[in-house]
Amino acid sequence: METITIGLLGLGTVGKGVVTLLQTQAAKIARTQDFRFKLKSVAVHNLAHHQGDRLPAGTILTDKVTDVVDDPEIHIVVEAMGTIAPAKVAICQAILNGKSIISANKDLLATAGEEILQLAKTAKVDFFYEASVAGGIPILRVLSSCLETDQITQITGIINGTANYVLTAMDRKGQDYKTALAAAQELGYAEADPTNDVQGIDATYKLIILSRFAFGQSLSLKDVPAQGITNVSPAQLASANQLGLKVKLLAVAKEEKHQLFSFVGPAAIPAAEPLAHVNGVQNAIAVQSDALGETTYTGPGAGATPTANSILSDLLATGDDIVKGNCGREFNSYRKPAIAKPLTAVPQRYLITVEGTGNLLSIVSNIPTVSWQQQATGQDYWSGLTPVIDHDDLEQLCASLRQSGRQVAFLPIANSWQTVPEKVRE
Amino acid sequence: METITIGLLGLGTVGKGVVTLLQTQAAKIARTQDFRFKLKSVAVHNLAHHQGDRLPAGTILTDKVTDVVDDPEIHIVVEAMGTIAPAKVAICQAILNGKSIISANKDLLATAGEEILQLAKTAKVDFFYEASVAGGIPILRVLSSCLETDQITQITGIINGTANYVLTAMDRKGQDYKTALAAAQELGYAEADPTNDVQGIDATYKLIILSRFAFGQSLSLKDVPAQGITNVSPAQLASANQLGLKVKLLAVAKEEKHQLFSFVGPAAIPAAEPLAHVNGVQNAIAVQSDALGETTYTGPGAGATPTANSILSDLLATGDDIVKGNCGREFNSYRKPAIAKPLTAVPQRYLITVEGTGNLLSIVSNIPTVSWQQQATGQDYWSGLTPVIDHDDLEQLCASLRQSGRQVAFLPIANSWQTVPEKVRE
Repeated sequence: METITIGLLGLGTVGKGVVTLLQTQAAKIARTQDFRFKLKSVAVHNLAHHQGDRLPAGTILTDKVTDVVDDPEIHIVVEAMGTIAPAKVAICQAILNGKSIISANKDLLATAGEEILQLAKTAKVDFFYEASVAGGIPILRVLSSCLETDQITQITGIINGTANYVLTAMDRKGQDYKTALAAAQELGYAEADPTNDVQGIDATYKLIILSRFAFGQSLSLKDVPAQGITNVSPAQLASANQLGLKVKLLAVAKEEKHQLFSFVGPAAIPAAEPLAHVNGVQNAIAVQSDALGETTYTGPGAGATPTANSILSDLLATGDDIVKGNCGREFNSYRKPAIAKPLTAVPQRYLITVEGTGNLLSIVSNIPTVSWQQQATGQDYWSGLTPVIDHDDLEQLCASLRQSGRQVAFLPIANSWQTVPEKVRE
Repeated sequence: METITIGLLGLGTVGKGVVTLLQTQAAKIARTQDFRFKLKSVAVHNLAHHQGDRLPAGTILTDKVTDVVDDPEIHIVVEAMGTIAPAKVAICQAILNGKSIISANKDLLATAGEEILQLAKTAKVDFFYEASVAGGIPILRVLSSCLETDQITQITGIINGTANYVLTAMDRKGQDYKTALAAAQELGYAEADPTNDVQGIDATYKLIILSRFAFGQSLSLKDVPAQGITNVSPAQLASANQLGLKVKLLAVAKEEKHQLFSFVGPAAIPAAEPLAHVNGVQNAIAVQSDALGETTYTGPGAGATPTANSILSDLLATGDDIVKGNCGREFNSYRKPAIAKPLTAVPQRYLITVEGTGNLLSIVSNIPTVSWQQQATGQDYWSGLTPVIDHDDLEQLCASLRQSGRQVAFLPIANSWQTVPEKVRE
């Protein structure tokens, strides 16, 4: 039985999960595969921080990345550093040394992915990154191995656990954003600097990677107009509930007529849709496609062992390719040109919430196209659903409501953008 | 670019779906693969029934299975006949002729799967059957490629669309079983002879296949005590609703301490669980595992194009193996000994429904361990949740209630069987 030697970069939460799972799953791997894995060395930034970490007997702990990426005995480098620049240098060096790469680094993949993928293809090494999107949900392998023969028309994801946790807490406990975020930070569900999670940047990175697999399309950060959840108010959550809707941070990409419409931001989801029931740190991705209709994949979006399991499934695929001499196949080989557009270009329905004191009835009743209703709780705000309207008309409508001095906010209604009219198609 | 030649057995719903998808997806397949497919011939039972069917130009229609399985030009045989005996003969002959096989035939796989898989392994051909379980949901490939590095502890599936459609209709419309079934037959969601679907036989076949992938365990039909939905009453659905539960036909396999507990039958699911929201002909499979916790896979369980898409993903995998000379790898290579037991051996909670006329209070109040409540609708039945009890104690409890002449029915509460006590473990 062949032994495949692994080098690991980084020993944080994900790295430790990989070390653990390689040990606990060794017997099962030996039973089902023609090879076994050996973890030879682990590179960390600061040796002093890892003196207490337990590694398998014989595994080398080093603070030099080159001890891993330049080691001729190592077949596969698992990158779990989580930075952009140093990880890129290390990965490129390892590829040039003929090593296959497994990475969980969504930031790197979203911003410099194509460049590294080309390098890996040229060097005929494997480069897998299942763990970069939705942690433990095997969505990239599902898209590349199971839905490759289908035509995907839309991907809708709840793919940031922190944002979903905060919104769920706001909804269930009636908390405002700041209180819910502080509680999430206390419990370790949000980082000390939560910017990437709550501003939708992390979800955008993941949507960029998903769009390559689903649509063959390489979006860049500037193509996706991301909004965060920082301005979502308890009044918006309450008015959504009253109308049978749940507010989630959604990442959406929808293809129609060679255009790829994308959106990252808070949206209101009808309770009948599966994504409305995805709560807390759970992630879920709904895929709409011609042959299957809708399939939904739900599971843990983060955490040591879920992320490590995705890395181990990449390791098995790479190990199999090494044993059979098949390295160099792309994780995703689908490419198809499309024009990137914001989803706001598509007419859709919106939930409008008007807050403020005094008589709001006279104000909202000026906008008869919206089905207004007052909060059942008796608080001083009104909410309503618009018909399907252009974004310009929505802005105009909100502007007229704001003239009263009231606070006006809107959320798109998920999947109300079903039909792209001809004029947008042009 | 290599051409891989396909022969198709059967041109019913699934076979026609394969023909369609091979044509609509040809361009995408050519863009992402090193090969193209050619459908050379299609064998049907009765040529006269298929004179109007449209096949690609040059495709041969024959009523001789041997024209396909003995044709030396054909690399892959897709079996979409859906019978047991003739399909087995055809598949075995094709394997002996060195052809790889793709099948959607759950009945055959559940009853004679191991035998054919051994034959395929010896002949070094591929044998894939993603379409045999849960139609369009890629659950087998997820289990074999993505969760292979995890330790699965439980699989819970809604894997019969007909039964789920009937139960959903009974729940939503307040219909009794016979009315709901007749409506489903009218709409084509249930067959004229619905035995396999409503008696839980079809779900048992699928659970047997799932258990091989998830637990490495080959259950046989007699290991799984299957019940159907034919005795589920509107009163049971109503009492479940009152307690925040939804009744579904579940297929469950749970491994603990080298024992595999299985169950197929109606059960009540707490509304907080994702499976409670799977309605109509939808299928879903929840997988509990050590590394991932719970992941859930939801989608269409049947239909021409979803099933055909699963067959096409098998075709891509086989095509890749043929091009690279890798045929003969098993779809699932996991084997692990375990003792098969019925899940009823594990103590669990039950929903009990007592129907009848007259004063039921005096009867149910004799059983104080159950938290009884009267139907809010004022109808003459009571329902209650038991604590976690042995199945023998449940039977005794129901027997004592039946002495009053009332109709007594029970449903297990999903996931109330979490802990297997020591005495069951022995």
